Amino acid sequence: MRTIRFEGNKVVMVDQNLLPRELKEVECETYEEVAEAIRKMKIRGAPAIGVAAAMGIALAAINSKAKSMEEFVREVKKAADELKNTRPTAVNLFWAVDRMLRLLHAEGSVEDTKKRLVDEALKMAEEDVNTNMRIGEFGKTLIEDGDRILTHCNAGSLATVYYGTALGVIRAAFDEGKKIEVFADETRPKLQGARLTAFELSYDGIPVTVITDNMAGYLMSKGMVDKVIVGADRILRTGHVINKVGTYSLAILAKYHNIPFYVAAPTSTFDLKSELKDVVIEERDPKEVTHVDGVRIVPEGVRVMNPAFDVTPPELLSAIITEKGILRKPYERSIRKLFSSD
Amino acid sequence: MRTIRFEGNKVVMVDQNLLPRELKEVECETYEEVAEAIRKMKIRGAPAIGVAAAMGIALAAINSKAKSMEEFVREVKKAADELKNTRPTAVNLFWAVDRMLRLLHAEGSVEDTKKRLVDEALKMAEEDVNTNMRIGEFGKTLIEDGDRILTHCNAGSLATVYYGTALGVIRAAFDEGKKIEVFADETRPKLQGARLTAFELSYDGIPVTVITDNMAGYLMSKGMVDKVIVGADRILRTGHVINKVGTYSLAILAKYHNIPFYVAAPTSTFDLKSELKDVVIEERDPKEVTHVDGVRIVPEGVRVMNPAFDVTPPELLSAIITEKGILRKPYERSIRKLFSSD
Repeated sequence: MRTIRFEGNKVVMVDQNLLPRELKEVECETYEEVAEAIRKMKIRGAPAIGVAAAMGIALAAINSKAKSMEEFVREVKKAADELKNTRPTAVNLFWAVDRMLRLLHAEGSVEDTKKRLVDEALKMAEEDVNTNMRIGEFGKTLIEDGDRILTHCNAGSLATVYYGTALGVIRAAFDEGKKIEVFADETRPKLQGARLTAFELSYDGIPVTVITDNMAGYLMSKGMVDKVIVGADRILRTGHVINKVGTYSLAILAKYHNIPFYVAAPTSTFDLKSELKDVVIEERDPKEVTHVDGVRIVPEGVRVMNPAFDVTPPELLSAIITEKGILRKPYERSIRKLFSSD
Repeated sequence: MRTIRFEGNKVVMVDQNLLPRELKEVECETYEEVAEAIRKMKIRGAPAIGVAAAMGIALAAINSKAKSMEEFVREVKKAADELKNTRPTAVNLFWAVDRMLRLLHAEGSVEDTKKRLVDEALKMAEEDVNTNMRIGEFGKTLIEDGDRILTHCNAGSLATVYYGTALGVIRAAFDEGKKIEVFADETRPKLQGARLTAFELSYDGIPVTVITDNMAGYLMSKGMVDKVIVGADRILRTGHVINKVGTYSLAILAKYHNIPFYVAAPTSTFDLKSELKDVVIEERDPKEVTHVDGVRIVPEGVRVMNPAFDVTPPELLSAIITEKGILRKPYERSIRKLFSSD
C-alpha cells in the first residue's frame, strides 16, 4: 500500500492522523487541499511531503483554466508558494517544488506543460520508492543478525511513498532473514512512533516494542539497544542533521553508551546551501502538547513549548545512509564528494 | 494545602490521578484503602507514600479489635506487609513501615500502642514538612537569580506532605526573591510533570513551561537550561540514584552540556543496605503506555515496556541536597559521613 498516489486527477493519501485506529485514505482535488493536508500532518515525513507538494503542483496545473503560458506559470507559481509555506523545516518540500518549477521553463504549450508536470510528480513518487529500496540495500549491511534497533518518530513507509528510510533499512535487513527487534520511541507530542512506526512494523510482522521517549537511556544502560537508526528532515553540508525533536537527545545517549547512531535519508534531504543559523525549526500548535486526542493534560494557562525538530551535530553520527552509498566522517568532505560526483 | 493528612481516624489525601482537572480529596478508612491508593498512584512520590504507609498502619491499629498484644501485633504486621507490597522501588515506604513496626516492641497495652502508632504517623508527617523546608534552605544556595531550572516528574508538594524536595528547593529560592523559570518535563507515561508539577508551580505563581520529555536536549543545546533538579525514590550508599524513568537520560544530557545536575531528597530516601542489583525497578501496567486518559495510542497487540524508574550513577551528579546538608562527590564517603554523624 502506498502512502500517497496520484489517481484520476486526484491526490489520494492515507490520513495519518487517524492511524492506528483507522486506515483511511483522503482524496485531494485541489492543491489547497494538499497544502492543508501537509499543514495538518495528514501526510508527514520529509520524503512524503516532498512528493505530496509535487502532486499538489500537478493538481494546480491540471485545474488551471489559464489560456496563456504566462497566466499558467503565474498560477502554478502561486500554488508552489502556498505549498512551500506549509512547513518550514523539511527540505524535501522545497527540493520537490523547485524541481517541478524548473519544468515551467521548457518549450511547449500549456497543455504540454501540464502533462509534463503530472509526469514529473509521478516520476518523483516512483523515484522515492526506488531510492528507499537502495537506502535499504546499503543500510542492511550495517545491521547484524540479532540486532535490537531503536528508532524515533516514523521514518517508514508512511513517511515516504513506500518502504521508508530508517525503516527501509530495517525492512531490508529483516527481509534477508536477519533476526531483528525494534524499539520505537512513542515520539511525543504527535506520537508518530506509537501510532505509525508500531503500526507499520507490526503490520509487516517485524517485532516492535513501544517505549516512552524517556525510557531510551534506561534501555541503553541495560544493554538492550545495539543500534539507533533515524530518518532526517534536512541534512546540511556540514553534516548537521535536522530531525524530529528528541533525535539529538538520542544521539547523545547513543554516544554515551557507545551505540552506533545512523541516519538514513535520500539525497533530496540534503541542503547544501543553508547555514545552520538559517534553518527554521518549526514551532507547532501548543495544543499538540497540552492535549492528547482532545483530552487536556496540561493545566489551563500553563505555557508549553512545541519545537518539532532539533539539530544533531555531525560528531554524534556513526554514518549517514543514502541511496548513493554510506557516508562516514568527516561528513563535510563525504557529502561534498557525493554531490560532486553527480 | 496538605497532600495527605490524618483526620477523624481517616487518612485524607488529594487524588492525584484526577489532577489537574479536579482537585479532590479521597478518604481512606482502612489500611487496605490506603494500600490501594498507593498502588493506583492516587498518592505517589517517595516521601508521600512513606507517610501514607505510616498512616495506613495507624488505621490498621485503630481499626483492630484485637484483645491481646500478640493478636494486635499480628494484625498490624499483616497490614505492614500489605502496605510494603504496594510498590517495590521507593525506599521511603519500607523506611516508614519499619519505623512504625519498631513501636510494637515497646512496653504497654494495646491501647497504648495504638496511640503511639497514630502519634508516630502524625509526627512523621510533620517531620516530612520540616525536612522539605530544610532541603529548601540548603538547596536554595545553589540557585542563582535568573536561573532556568529543568525538573522531571513531580518532586513537589504533591510528592510529599507539603512543600516538596526538588520543588522545595525551587520554592525556597523563589520565596527569597530569586527570579526563576522552571521547565517541567511532562514525564510520560503518567504525566506527573504536565499534570502535577505544572499545577502546583502555576498555583504558586512560579513561572513554569511544560515540554515533552524528548525536548530537554534541544533546550539545553539552545542554552535555555541552567540547572537540573530532580527528586529521588531511593539513593544507595554508592550514590546511585533511583528515580522516575528519564532521570538517567537527563543526567547524561546535563553532563554533555555542562549543566549542574542536582538531586534533592530526605535522608529517609537513602538505602544504605541494598546493592544495586537487588533494587527492583517496578514494571507497571502496560496500559499506562498504550493509553492516555483511556484513549488507545498504541496499536492493539503491540508490545510495550513500562519501567517506572531508572538508575543514575554518582558520576553524573553535581550534588545531593538533603535536610542535613549538601553532599558532594565522592558520594560513598559523603553519604557514610552523613549517616555516621547521626
